[in-house]
Amino acid sequence: MTTLLPLIETPTDAPCCTPGAGGLDPERAATIARTFKALGDPTRIRLLSIIAAAPDGDACICDLTEPVGLSQPTVSHHMKLLAEAGLVTREQRGKWAHFAIAPDARGTIDAALDLALDLR
Amino acid sequence: MTTLLPLIETPTDAPCCTPGAGGLDPERAATIARTFKALGDPTRIRLLSIIAAAPDGDACICDLTEPVGLSQPTVSHHMKLLAEAGLVTREQRGKWAHFAIAPDARGTIDAALDLALDLR
Repeated sequence: MTTLLPLIETPTDAPCCTPGAGGLDPERAATIARTFKALGDPTRIRLLSIIAAAPDGDACICDLTEPVGLSQPTVSHHMKLLAEAGLVTREQRGKWAHFAIAPDARGTIDAALDLALDLR
Repeated sequence: MTTLLPLIETPTDAPCCTPGAGGLDPERAATIARTFKALGDPTRIRLLSIIAAAPDGDACICDLTEPVGLSQPTVSHHMKLLAEAGLVTREQRGKWAHFAIAPDARGTIDAALDLALDLR
């Protein structure tokens, strides 16, 4: 015996979509965006890669200016943004500031991504 | 019998630092920075989080404008930047464009981070 299953009718006047959740609140979104904005500049990416590739994972500001071809004040400004975003640590040794990739840099970025991409 | 080991003398006139590696080349750094620049904006972070939180992981452009309080052309522009960075996919369904988090979005970002932070 054949049982006829009722057809589920799709209403033709239905709106195209179901409204989604509101997503992150603006303040939290701004904090997350700040972390990524620090990474969203070619010079800062180069500076990070130079520090990451340094023999002891530590680079003096005096060694960062020449590879990127910028003045020390400009490089200092870039390093300040990276430090504020929690991506590098800064240590003053005598005359020179030394920078290292922050031990939790990757964790900071991963946590920001979790919030942006995996919120359910 | 005691063997005296020679002392290694540290020259006092040594420069403060050993020069580091040159880091990423400018072109590659620019590509990586573009990915992060797409994430470096509060509105785009909110748009991503709304899409990620949508019931089917899929959001119509018509549902993205109201939560962020922006016009559809402005939201479309933000979505274009996210799509170009490989962070979302776009599918046209009739009148409306629908967006989903790209399956390899996390992989794209992780690969960029590997290059920026772990180069040795």
